[in-house]
Amino acid sequence: MKLEKLVGERFKERPADCIIHSHALMLRGGYMKQVTSGIFSSLTVLRRITRKIENIIRDEMDRIGGQEVLFPVVMPARLWQESGRYNSIGNELVRFDDRNGNSMVLGMTHEEAAVHLVREYGRSYTRYPFMIYQIQTKFRDEARPRGGLIRVREFTMKDAYSFHTSQKDLEDFYQKCLEAYYRIFARVGLPEVIAVASDSGMMGGSVSHEFMLLTPVGEDSIVICRNCDYKANLEAAESIVINENAGDEAPLVKVHTPGMKTIEEVCGFLGIPVENSCKAVVYWKEKTGEYVVVFIRGDLDVNETKVSKFLGESIRPAVIGENSGLVAGFIGPYGLKNVQMLFDRSLMGIGNLCCGANVPDYHYTGLNIERDLGKVEYHDFAKASENGICPRCQKNALTISRGIEVGNIFQLGDKYTKSMNMQYVDANGNLRYPVMGCYGIGIERLAAAVCEAHHDGYGPIWPISIAPWQVHLCCMRPDDQKVKETADYFYEQLQSANIETIYDDRDVSAGVMLSDADLLGVPIRIIVSPRNLKENLCEIQTRDKSISRKVETGQMLSAVQELITELHGRLYSVDA
Amino acid sequence: MKLEKLVGERFKERPADCIIHSHALMLRGGYMKQVTSGIFSSLTVLRRITRKIENIIRDEMDRIGGQEVLFPVVMPARLWQESGRYNSIGNELVRFDDRNGNSMVLGMTHEEAAVHLVREYGRSYTRYPFMIYQIQTKFRDEARPRGGLIRVREFTMKDAYSFHTSQKDLEDFYQKCLEAYYRIFARVGLPEVIAVASDSGMMGGSVSHEFMLLTPVGEDSIVICRNCDYKANLEAAESIVINENAGDEAPLVKVHTPGMKTIEEVCGFLGIPVENSCKAVVYWKEKTGEYVVVFIRGDLDVNETKVSKFLGESIRPAVIGENSGLVAGFIGPYGLKNVQMLFDRSLMGIGNLCCGANVPDYHYTGLNIERDLGKVEYHDFAKASENGICPRCQKNALTISRGIEVGNIFQLGDKYTKSMNMQYVDANGNLRYPVMGCYGIGIERLAAAVCEAHHDGYGPIWPISIAPWQVHLCCMRPDDQKVKETADYFYEQLQSANIETIYDDRDVSAGVMLSDADLLGVPIRIIVSPRNLKENLCEIQTRDKSISRKVETGQMLSAVQELITELHGRLYSVDA
Repeated sequence: MKLEKLVGERFKERPADCIIHSHALMLRGGYMKQVTSGIFSSLTVLRRITRKIENIIRDEMDRIGGQEVLFPVVMPARLWQESGRYNSIGNELVRFDDRNGNSMVLGMTHEEAAVHLVREYGRSYTRYPFMIYQIQTKFRDEARPRGGLIRVREFTMKDAYSFHTSQKDLEDFYQKCLEAYYRIFARVGLPEVIAVASDSGMMGGSVSHEFMLLTPVGEDSIVICRNCDYKANLEAAESIVINENAGDEAPLVKVHTPGMKTIEEVCGFLGIPVENSCKAVVYWKEKTGEYVVVFIRGDLDVNETKVSKFLGESIRPAVIGENSGLVAGFIGPYGLKNVQMLFDRSLMGIGNLCCGANVPDYHYTGLNIERDLGKVEYHDFAKASENGICPRCQKNALTISRGIEVGNIFQLGDKYTKSMNMQYVDANGNLRYPVMGCYGIGIERLAAAVCEAHHDGYGPIWPISIAPWQVHLCCMRPDDQKVKETADYFYEQLQSANIETIYDDRDVSAGVMLSDADLLGVPIRIIVSPRNLKENLCEIQTRDKSISRKVETGQMLSAVQELITELHGRLYSVDA
Repeated sequence: MKLEKLVGERFKERPADCIIHSHALMLRGGYMKQVTSGIFSSLTVLRRITRKIENIIRDEMDRIGGQEVLFPVVMPARLWQESGRYNSIGNELVRFDDRNGNSMVLGMTHEEAAVHLVREYGRSYTRYPFMIYQIQTKFRDEARPRGGLIRVREFTMKDAYSFHTSQKDLEDFYQKCLEAYYRIFARVGLPEVIAVASDSGMMGGSVSHEFMLLTPVGEDSIVICRNCDYKANLEAAESIVINENAGDEAPLVKVHTPGMKTIEEVCGFLGIPVENSCKAVVYWKEKTGEYVVVFIRGDLDVNETKVSKFLGESIRPAVIGENSGLVAGFIGPYGLKNVQMLFDRSLMGIGNLCCGANVPDYHYTGLNIERDLGKVEYHDFAKASENGICPRCQKNALTISRGIEVGNIFQLGDKYTKSMNMQYVDANGNLRYPVMGCYGIGIERLAAAVCEAHHDGYGPIWPISIAPWQVHLCCMRPDDQKVKETADYFYEQLQSANIETIYDDRDVSAGVMLSDADLLGVPIRIIVSPRNLKENLCEIQTRDKSISRKVETGQMLSAVQELITELHGRLYSVDA
């Protein structure tokens, strides 16, 4: 294709509202255009990239026995009522009535549709296991779309659903799919992506993993152990707290702590370590507005995902009202009435705690939970922390990194098959519920993540496997007849050899030509210029600047073909 | 792929609610499953077919310079308010509010999105012409989905949009696209598709064509001239009426016609030809509920599309209310007050008409419109009729056939660029509105249309270009070791040769095996059976039964490869 025909505008200035590089560079390169918050149109360059990503994913899904299908974007609410998610999911799920007054939803994920499609097919155990997948548009009405293509409302997703007659069979397939995902990420140029344990969220089920590209601009926090191979999303990371200095028992004493509302103020005033305080964190249950107070050791933070999962409903940080019965800044478990209290296991076994007295300007010292409150249940509500103890190897070796989630996989168990009454007859004639797995990859986000991992100040550096074109041919002086003829001839040669080429023969300055080429990020560049041509040479470079070769014009094609092979060789080999 | 792993149920019984063959056969073959009225999931077999159709379309769109993009399914209402269609389109357009209360729509077509995407890119005349297209899900809330995949609410569509600086350039490109469409239809196995003039409907613009597969089960009526090459959708077909026997003038006389409400009754009673009567057809304007009366020659029917287009709004047949001022069965133009009257040009110049007298049980004879009503405007509101006069060659040679619309193309003019203020600077520095064309093909409907054109009583007969697989390999006796080994070896050979093969080695009866093969409609079938194997032969057949060859097992692969070439040769050649 000729660059002058390429639909899309390129520009120099970094748009003001772009926080991350992929957003800025892909806007500047004419990859996409925002239609409204979190909704983009993809232009030619991006669509060429996403089609290649889609085909790599298809290839790997087919390789593990997947069959491509297509579910609808618009579904009857009835299906989602069957699974129970019509009510359990919030505003992210778009609901509307059709012209006949039937309640409909926009597909944000397709577990219900998958069960609907195979409910009859899966009646006999002989048909298991099987996996179906689609590549289709999803809509999720995100509260805060951000980061360009990283967090949007509408996107293309590959979503796959597997069905099994045993947990063991699901686990085996889950492992196969996990490996297929590693191959996909490596093939698109992200061999560094890691799988981390994650929280299943609205999907349900027990075991799940997210695939993370570690990058400081990621929106997820990932806990990684420096000592063993423990890796988990912060939301899901277990925290282990050992109270080495549990402290001696002391009597419960009410002390005057005027105006001291923070843990630091109180502990400083009383001269006790923060680890010996019991902090109160107050939440609202989203549906009812009821208060929940989580007590946790003063030096730790609450992991809201864990609290929400424990309660089975959404929560958010509360503002403490005047008639709440709660005394902001002075809340403690002793004597607190009429409100649900949760205790983090970090408080377990401490003999001597400081906590609020539920009266303005007073705290207690010497609280011993078991002694003063009787039997309480402890659960894990704490956030894992930098240098915290690894729940696997028990060493103080946790680190917290940022990452972009580029895929996720879930073991769903029988959540959907049971609620939607999908059953099979086993070999003994008994009716059973199959178990399911589901497996997602967001296509446009993956493209942006590759850009985030592979770019310089001038533009993306696309891996050859997903680059919009393989070769960017620059005719540096189209007004010079010999240069133009040579470049035209190269273009013909490359096309005849089925090498995808974008050809720039515009009458523009070298600066414009090269900065446009940088923004398109095509891995191989051929420069035809008067100076080199005098010596019958042309220049072949890679976008990442690792290679720059002058070759005789007669050798151009073979040199390019070699370089293509070389660049493919740098990527993960499918047969490895 | 092994047939036993193919997700989807096949069955023998024709489903009760299927009117057309493609619907019944594709349900019976496990091609799709209905989720709710007009919404289907595609199973593996259909998705394999639609992907091939999509790739043929991509190939032809790219060949005429198209660039693939992707527009959103969910769009802000604002865009549709700009073009004016937010208000002008009825319930087919799904409207809903997002979580922040913004009005959104589901894309039923993407003219607005296309203009939005290229409004900045297209600022200079030097960038024209260009064409962008997408293959994406559309939702249209059809009142009456029917015919399986023929008329649905959700479907995949290839929609393309071209932009030009002159009507001439648009016309040239329109012709190129028309030819590309003919190639597409021929390549998927429908060389018989014809382009007919059509009404532009909600798209606006002047010139448009529909591509029609003629079949008695089609829902469209197409007017074709037996004499010249005139072809048009009945909705758009001009009617030409020559009143050869205009009749002599006669005085206006009120006659008693007790209880005679139909044209036939009245004309029979009065002993005059139906061609000398003036029929009244009454409509409601959809928005206001006002009445409109169309007067037309008694032997002709009203084309509602023409009336609606003339009025610029939707109409529907009226029920005549008691307080309407209209006397049902006795309506005539003479003396009719307070209602909009339209006159079809078939009434022009008739000297002596019979019509209702607007009084129960009375008609007039001898009506002469010009004399009795003064100057009236005549327009074309009549339906073309079988054996009617061709508007092109003027011969009485019109026929009316049924057809399925498999594609459409429109010259849109500046309707969208003007309303959405997309302008370019021309060579002289003047601001101008570009003109647009748009070009659509529904993917699943096209698959169903191919099935409608190519099937027998047992199943579809897929053309090799879009068949789900190229070869269907039947191991007729998997319990016979030699048969099984030979079939297994064939399967390996075919896979190594990159021939897409579905392999049936299930332990089922020959009847089940062959009827399943018929339902899948794969063009080439290989039968491995004990009897043939005794002579070291296998059988290679085509699904359409035109070819059945016994070949030595050692020659299987080359015979199949030859046959594939032969079958491709039967289709339209791209380079023709």
